[in-house]
Amino acid sequence: MPSPTDLSERLATALDITEAASRISLAHFNGALDIVTKEDESPVTIADQETERSIRDALQTAFPEDGLFGEEYGTEGLEKETVWVVDPIDGTRSFIAGVPLFGMLLAMTTREAPLLGICRLPALGQVYAAAKGLGATRDGSRIATSGCRALDAAMLFVNEGEKIYAEEPDVFGRLMQAGRLRRLAYDCQPHALVAAGQIDAVVDYDLKPYDFLAMVPIVEEAGGVITDWEGKPLGFQSDGRVVSAATPELHAEVLALLA
Amino acid sequence: MPSPTDLSERLATALDITEAASRISLAHFNGALDIVTKEDESPVTIADQETERSIRDALQTAFPEDGLFGEEYGTEGLEKETVWVVDPIDGTRSFIAGVPLFGMLLAMTTREAPLLGICRLPALGQVYAAAKGLGATRDGSRIATSGCRALDAAMLFVNEGEKIYAEEPDVFGRLMQAGRLRRLAYDCQPHALVAAGQIDAVVDYDLKPYDFLAMVPIVEEAGGVITDWEGKPLGFQSDGRVVSAATPELHAEVLALLA
Repeated sequence: MPSPTDLSERLATALDITEAASRISLAHFNGALDIVTKEDESPVTIADQETERSIRDALQTAFPEDGLFGEEYGTEGLEKETVWVVDPIDGTRSFIAGVPLFGMLLAMTTREAPLLGICRLPALGQVYAAAKGLGATRDGSRIATSGCRALDAAMLFVNEGEKIYAEEPDVFGRLMQAGRLRRLAYDCQPHALVAAGQIDAVVDYDLKPYDFLAMVPIVEEAGGVITDWEGKPLGFQSDGRVVSAATPELHAEVLALLA
Repeated sequence: MPSPTDLSERLATALDITEAASRISLAHFNGALDIVTKEDESPVTIADQETERSIRDALQTAFPEDGLFGEEYGTEGLEKETVWVVDPIDGTRSFIAGVPLFGMLLAMTTREAPLLGICRLPALGQVYAAAKGLGATRDGSRIATSGCRALDAAMLFVNEGEKIYAEEPDVFGRLMQAGRLRRLAYDCQPHALVAAGQIDAVVDYDLKPYDFLAMVPIVEEAGGVITDWEGKPLGFQSDGRVVSAATPELHAEVLALLA
């Protein structure tokens, strides 16, 4: 387990690496995009690939002993104690459509536990960051979740609504009547808004580890709770269903709604 | 009917007025918000009220002979030939939640026809503008819709999905299977993305005239089509159901899906 000093130094290095890489994705945003089609037909862009390449190369230089797991270029050294998990553009669909809410996610896991997380929103010029025991920040200032403890009072975001509607229609129906206010949304920004106390909870669905691992330290260090839909800790083996909430009480109420 | 020169001068003045007002809403964004509750429980902020006040005062100074219709402060002189229609913050819920996609909308109507439209996205620093016969621009550069003519090939945004799901469940179900890609969204930005050619169509629901009148010249001058769900021109008497599309062919296909 890295010491606090080590974690702090690793966080500083990771912030530098992602700042440089975020300039690559931003330069492609709003520009002409060469869209490639992956086998699963999700949209992938040259920007995705260039951005992940930049982050991987820099991580391998800075931390040659660590493993890597990225969305575009797969895994290297997944058996290592420490593994970096990269999503160069979280929300490629937003990116392609000109919606500036796409993110860049980087997590560092030690024995599968996410100890460090960075969530950049390149088009907004924002960065959320956290390391275990060191607190969570947005643009360098400490953030904390709201004190919301009751679902009836909560501003609830529902990510991937289309998929939940198609595959879990009863859950979708309950979600559309839950909370004080609801919003259908996507990708990492809603989880960051929970950490910053601007909204109270997010229900998410069908994610990969690189979509959520970076958000674990950010939400937890801000005082929130983030797990799968059954309340289990998130890791490489999670099923991709995620709940973030401002408080344990609100989190429990959202889990009960999903059950 | 104003001459092209007159329209061009009015557009320049309206751009100046909205630029000044957008600084007010932006200053409140991400800050502490004093949220007031309207009778219909939609969230309203001090920012809404200050911003509309600024726009109304400036319009009354610049165009004392014209009428005004705003979201927060109602109508004055609706019987005048020319009426300005103001939505100071389109997307108050986005604004409160820290989602930087809220807009500022200003339309000028002459005998109820929207001849001039401005859509600012203050947190993104973008402005879309158009006047009848003079083209549509984003940040001063001409924009045009995509050439997409088939729904199967379209990037389709569905606004107000929660309300469509609750009130028109069959339509919601069809929309969630339509298009090449879909996204659940809100407010004015999707219509602006149609005008800019970044997405192909938007289905919207339960809007007020100040939510859509500014988008009419912007979408039409960019080469697109924007009407109600029955294909009728949009005006003060519209029922609040709106479709924007890149081409007449795509527009017709979306209308058929909604029928």
